[in-house]
Amino acid sequence: MRVAFQGETGAYSEEAVRSLYPQAEAVPCPEFDAVFAAVESGSCDRAVVPIENSLHGSVHQNYDLLRDHTLRIVGEAQLRIRHQLLGVPGAALTQITAVHSHPQALGQCREFIRTHLPNARAVPAYDTAGSARDIARSGNREHAAIASRRAAREYGLDILAENVESNTENYTRFLALAPATDVSVRDLAAVATTGSPKTSIVYAQAENVPGSLFKSLAVFALRDIDLFKIESRPLVGSPGKYLFYLDLAGRADDEQVRNALHHLGEVAASVTVLGTYAEGPVIGS
Amino acid sequence: MRVAFQGETGAYSEEAVRSLYPQAEAVPCPEFDAVFAAVESGSCDRAVVPIENSLHGSVHQNYDLLRDHTLRIVGEAQLRIRHQLLGVPGAALTQITAVHSHPQALGQCREFIRTHLPNARAVPAYDTAGSARDIARSGNREHAAIASRRAAREYGLDILAENVESNTENYTRFLALAPATDVSVRDLAAVATTGSPKTSIVYAQAENVPGSLFKSLAVFALRDIDLFKIESRPLVGSPGKYLFYLDLAGRADDEQVRNALHHLGEVAASVTVLGTYAEGPVIGS
Repeated sequence: MRVAFQGETGAYSEEAVRSLYPQAEAVPCPEFDAVFAAVESGSCDRAVVPIENSLHGSVHQNYDLLRDHTLRIVGEAQLRIRHQLLGVPGAALTQITAVHSHPQALGQCREFIRTHLPNARAVPAYDTAGSARDIARSGNREHAAIASRRAAREYGLDILAENVESNTENYTRFLALAPATDVSVRDLAAVATTGSPKTSIVYAQAENVPGSLFKSLAVFALRDIDLFKIESRPLVGSPGKYLFYLDLAGRADDEQVRNALHHLGEVAASVTVLGTYAEGPVIGS
Repeated sequence: MRVAFQGETGAYSEEAVRSLYPQAEAVPCPEFDAVFAAVESGSCDRAVVPIENSLHGSVHQNYDLLRDHTLRIVGEAQLRIRHQLLGVPGAALTQITAVHSHPQALGQCREFIRTHLPNARAVPAYDTAGSARDIARSGNREHAAIASRRAAREYGLDILAENVESNTENYTRFLALAPATDVSVRDLAAVATTGSPKTSIVYAQAENVPGSLFKSLAVFALRDIDLFKIESRPLVGSPGKYLFYLDLAGRADDEQVRNALHHLGEVAASVTVLGTYAEGPVIGS
């Protein structure tokens, strides 16, 4: 089995792949478009993509790609993001003069850098794992990267300081995606055996009238279906119109959920079921 | 009047400052924390911060800072993000070998770079305006930056190619913030004269029971109060508990809205009113 992810080898996304598909080959792709295309073309069997981060919110781009492609969600995992300061073997924390990483990761570790490396330059990079790879290639003992523990192993780097992020509540939720035509027995078995199946949908508002959001949520409340996520997203170019992202408890083929989605179809302009899957574990990085 | 914003001179945030406060001095700050601190300490009178982007979602960090500080929202503006390819005077598009910008901006202009500059390196930078400043300082005719039109003027750069972003539906919503003790006559007059006042609130769920979100939204639907934004955010460390971001039509001191917020207080663990303000204009960049 081949599983596509966005980023370099050693990226946090690869950690999510390893957790969801321990036996699979993880296939790095440069962009999210390429990840979706890899599964749609059949060159990969599954994809694993981030969909929301506790500090930075939903990844709208991947919601858009889900709507534009025929892939289905078949699993999820929450990854705790822990950043490590990595240097080449033999490097010492006191000798570091530059810290490389993605601007977001540099921002999340600003406190550590300010306290422990007050004279070091922060150097922005495309991604965390790529900065680790570059430090390893350079062999420069004065440069460090902020990246995952996996990146340290992958590129043979030492961990100069552990868990250097300021905010410890940094989690990314990843989705596992499969071709709609190939939601396998194993995927379905995972849903069948869990006590907590979830279904993700996207729907568009039919009209902008007071209470239209309320009416669309009533279809679930009237049937005692619990909601895990609700997010409105303005439809640019259509003032007052919105898309809604919604995660609900239950399987899309449960009778109550089927009735609710049918009812939602009466009050929404469009409804797209993105998939039913087992509630995922929280995993360390 | 001094208005704090995050970023370098020439940043998109500065454009939002100029639009909301044309007469004010725009004061660049390195981080969002510093923007909030500047207004709270009185060294600036107002702040302007991004709160959501049409492609990248809500800026949770600024919602968190709004909850942790006493500032109030007193205005908003939607800025259309248009990226320009900037070079030093005399530079030619065909000679560019490297394009510098924030990774997000580089990603948004990937198509342009691939088509028109297939051999150019993409070089990540901390921010768009900072990359423009660095190109101007270097004087290197082979390097270009992706940044705003304002950054071109600010740093004396030529626009080598206009509007190089792939997705034309790229808008950032900015909020204007004031000290809670100093919501001025002018701020209130703007709300009084507009036909469309809005109020933003944050509330926490009281308990995780089916239909609790529905109950909290019922307090508005029962009073025909329209909603512009609803977003759930999981409270990390409290499984099944959520914060909700909500924008509603009306002033916080309207009788109907006051009643709804009182009612919300009965079903929510906490309710914070972030401010009442006039619905903002959409502005070009």
